[in-house]
Formats: sequence, C-alpha cells, structure tokens
Amino acid sequence: MDTPLAAERARAIRDSFAKQGLMISLGAGIDRLAPGRVVLSLPITAAVTQQHGFAHAGTSFALADSAAGYAALSLMPEGSEVLTVEMKINLIAPAAGARLIAEGEVIKPGRRLLVVRATVHAEDASGLRKPVAILQGTMIPAGAAPPG
Amino acid sequence: MDTPLAAERARAIRDSFAKQGLMISLGAGIDRLAPGRVVLSLPITAAVTQQHGFAHAGTSFALADSAAGYAALSLMPEGSEVLTVEMKINLIAPAAGARLIAEGEVIKPGRRLLVVRATVHAEDASGLRKPVAILQGTMIPAGAAPPG
Amino acid sequence: MDTPLAAERARAIRDSFAKQGLMISLGAGIDRLAPGRVVLSLPITAAVTQQHGFAHAGTSFALADSAAGYAALSLMPEGSEVLTVEMKINLIAPAAGARLIAEGEVIKPGRRLLVVRATVHAEDASGLRKPVAILQGTMIPAGAAPPG
Amino acid sequence: MDTPLAAERARAIRDSFAKQGLMISLGAGIDRLAPGRVVLSLPITAAVTQQHGFAHAGTSFALADSAAGYAALSLMPEGSEVLTVEMKINLIAPAAGARLIAEGEVIKPGRRLLVVRATVHAEDASGLRKPVAILQGTMIPAGAAPPG
Repeated sequence: MDTPLAAERARAIRDSFAKQGLMISLGAGIDRLAPGRVVLSLPITAAVTQQHGFAHAGTSFALADSAAGYAALSLMPEGSEVLTVEMKINLIAPAAGARLIAEGEVIKPGRRLLVVRATVHAEDASGLRKPVAILQGTMIPAGAAPPG
Repeated sequence: MDTPLAAERARAIRDSFAKQGLMISLGAGIDRLAPGRVVLSLPITAAVTQQHGFAHAGTSFALADSAAGYAALSLMPEGSEVLTVEMKINLIAPAAGARLIAEGEVIKPGRRLLVVRATVHAEDASGLRKPVAILQGTMIPAGAAPPG
Repeated sequence: MDTPLAAERARAIRDSFAKQGLMISLGAGIDRLAPGRVVLSLPITAAVTQQHGFAHAGTSFALADSAAGYAALSLMPEGSEVLTVEMKINLIAPAAGARLIAEGEVIKPGRRLLVVRATVHAEDASGLRKPVAILQGTMIPAGAAPPG
Repeated sequence: MDTPLAAERARAIRDSFAKQGLMISLGAGIDRLAPGRVVLSLPITAAVTQQHGFAHAGTSFALADSAAGYAALSLMPEGSEVLTVEMKINLIAPAAGARLIAEGEVIKPGRRLLVVRATVHAEDASGLRKPVAILQGTMIPAGAAPPG
C-alpha cells in the first residue's frame, strides 16, 4: 500500500463514494486508497446487523463490493465508471465486534473486465481483527451502456 | 405460493426479521411467506443507492440474502436458526425504479445444508417489474456453533 | 424447446463442439439445440469419476459449462465465439447413475455479456433422473481479444 | 510449503487420487503435498482442450477442485472424506501452454465446513507461468451421508 494514488483518481473515488447513499446510510468511510487497492470501514451498530447482532452478510457484501469497485476504478482512466458484473462471498466467521473493514484489490486488470477480490475483517474494541468474509468477482468499465 | 406457511414458522420468521437491524435501516418488509419461498421488498430511496442513483449491488444482495435465508428457515424445525455459508450474485440490469423485490427459494433442502436461489426485480411507479439480479447460494442450520 | 435453432447456428455449435477435445475425451454428445438452450450428455464411466465412483464435480462442471456456453453461442451472430468469464457450481447430490445430462440456458442475453444458468441431472439405467448440480455464470462474446 | 505432511495423510490423499478416474483421464499428477496446501498438474494435450486449443474451463476447474479438496483432506483426521459443496471459478486468461498447474489451499478450516481457494497457472515449454484462473469454494467433511 506504499504507492500513492494519483490525486485525480483519489478525487474521482471520493466524489463517487460521497454519492453512494448506501455507504452513507451504513456509516462507511474511506480508510486507504492505493492503485488497485482500496480499504473501507464502518462501525458495527444496530443499523447494520442481522438477528444475532452480528453485521449482516449484506453489510459485509456491500462494503466489500464498494471496496473492490473502487480498487477497480483506481486503475481506470479519467472519466471512467465501473459496475459490478458478479460477486461471490464466503462467510467464514460471525462479524462480531466494533468495526467492519473491507479491503478490495484488483487481481487482473483489463480493458473489458477486471477480476477482483476482497477480504472483510471484524475488529473488536481492542483493535484485534479476525477475517469474517472473502469475496471474488468481476467488474466492468461502464460508459453510457448498462451491463449486458 | 399457494400452500400457507405454518403459523409457528411464520411467527419465527417475523420475529427474526424484526431483529435484523439492516433490514429496518433499508426500510425492508415481508411481502409473502410460503414453505420454501419468501418475498421481501424495500423502497428505492437515496438511502440504498450507489453513485448513479440505482439501488446498490449491496442492497440487492442484502434483500435477496435475507429472502433466501428465510426461505430456508421456513422449512426448518422450531427453534432453528440459519446462517449464510456463501452466496453469489449476478447483476443483470441497473436497479432503477421505485421498489426492489427479492424472492428467495429453496432449491435443495437438507439436514446439513440448504441450497437456495433468489431473484431480485426492480418495480417502477406504474408497477412494471424487470429482473435486476439473480443469486445462488448455500445456507446452514445454526445452533450454538458458528459456521466452520 | 419448441423453437428450432437456425441451421447456421446449429452447424456453428456442432463444429465448435467437435473441436472441444475435452468433450470428446469425456464421451459427451449434443442432445438438443434450441435458441438460448442447449442440452449435452455423457455416460458415467470410470473415465469421469471421483474417488467414490460418482461423476467428478469437474465432470459436471465441464459438461454444464459447455452447455451454457453453447446456449450463449446459439443467440449470437454468425462468426461469433464465446468464452466463460466465470461460473459457479453448487453440488446438490452425488452424481451416481448411468448418464449425466446438462442443460444450459441464457437468462440475460447482451451485447457485452450474457448471464447463463445450467442444471445437471444424473440418470440411472431405468431413465430416472435426479438433479445433481446447479450453475450460474457469465459468458463474453469473443473476437480476437481474450477476456480482460 | 516447508512443513511436511504426515505420512498417513499423504498416503490417504495418494490413495484417493489414484481412484479419481477423471484425474487419470486428464493425465493429472500430484506435484506437492503440504498441510492445507496441494499442487496438482497435467499436460495440456488435445484431450483437455476447448475449441481454440486452450485448456477447457472444465479442465482448469476439475484440476483446481481436486487440488482444493485434497488441501482440505490434508487437514482432516484419518478415515475422513471430503466433498465439494460449491466452487466458483473466474477465468483470467486463455489456458495456453504445455502444462496446467493448480494450487489449492485452505483459507478457513472447520469441523463442519472448510473454505478453500485455488489458483491455476499455465506453463509454457520454457517453464514460464501465467495465472489463468482463480477459484473460491466450500468443502464438507463426508462420512456416510451425502451433502445436504
């Protein structure tokens, strides 16, 4: 995560993120931006849980999908957009704790498609992290045309 | 969707749903409950969107994951719980419109695992629906032990 | 499966299938061709099994992936090719029996991507079929350029 | 890959592998065995190709699925078996070359389920390797009972 992201790319991601109503509802923020790698996090509050008080699978998915999408966007030329084609999540432990952290990365960039992965960790009040979900998916550069 | 769901199973699902903080944050409600088949919906408001004003992939995922999970729970004995093992979503059109509707169904029930599918439709103000996402995944009956 | 497939499309699929060395190794054949829907099958012999004598998950996957790919190709213009972007399989029962049958279908056609599903059945000597796997994935029209 | 695998576990994997008819048909062999990590490979011959002469997606899937399954089996007690619950593959480049190499690893072991990943590389005649597919999936310990 040492290479800094070009200012224009960082600004494009921050502008897009600020328009994602869901990220705002979930209380999510941007932790780190690097080329092909983006970290987002959110507090685990009652607003994002399932019936046992853990973060909902949908919360982990949403945060990781955005992290992976912005990791893809970080590698694309100015004026680009990116859409999720498909994404698969494996839940590996209950998402209990104070904070949920998703790191998205580009595994294979491409002109027509980008293959991405993401990992979600739950962090407790003492700062201890454990992995709770892993994701693998595909992003598509988007202009005027919708996917398909 | 003709077979009615046993009252106890319906109550268990309604009780669980009421505790899903994320479903409440997203404004989701239960539309229909039947054995092995559950329909949930939510209004597409600014609180659930991505940067283009469509419902976020995470919104479609969360609603469909809950629908599929409750479809699984509808087939399980009293006192059961269910957790998502894994779930995959393909986005097939932008989720534009007034309302998002997810229908979850059990493809293969089982004692150790249940295989599920879900379909998400977006409905416009005139009531016209178009499919926006399809999902396929695995649920696990949960007692005290977490998945894994 | 009532609409017949145009002769040119059927020929393109048969020509391509005949070049799939893996399909030939596995003893697979084409059962039915229709627009957006293709059925392939193969005998369950010792050449396609896993350690318990059932068809290997890879056999079910390969047959279903080809069926889904040709379902996609059936909808594309002359001279087209198609490649698998990604595919997910859920195994729902042991693939025991005499024959494995995979039906692929296009869920969402598109100029840039096609979303597909497939179902695999195992058939016993008496002709009785049971579902053994379901798949969901993405195909991409291919010209000179590889995916990505 | 430094920790050696206990002799009994290695023998169990070699015995099981020798019974996988599909692996034998595909010409596959075991390259490396370590706790939670298994490498398999096969020659890219006409017997494993798709219509363009590259290894079929089903070939990459089958090799990677077996590698991931044996990575899971390497961590399980004597007398265990393992079955694939579900597996997702993203194809990232054409599988062209002389040899296909799949490395499976356990991401999250568990008593009830194991989460696995695999990577497939194609190697050319000069020994140069490039990644062609990544996989993410779930394995289940199997006794007498089938999945579900």
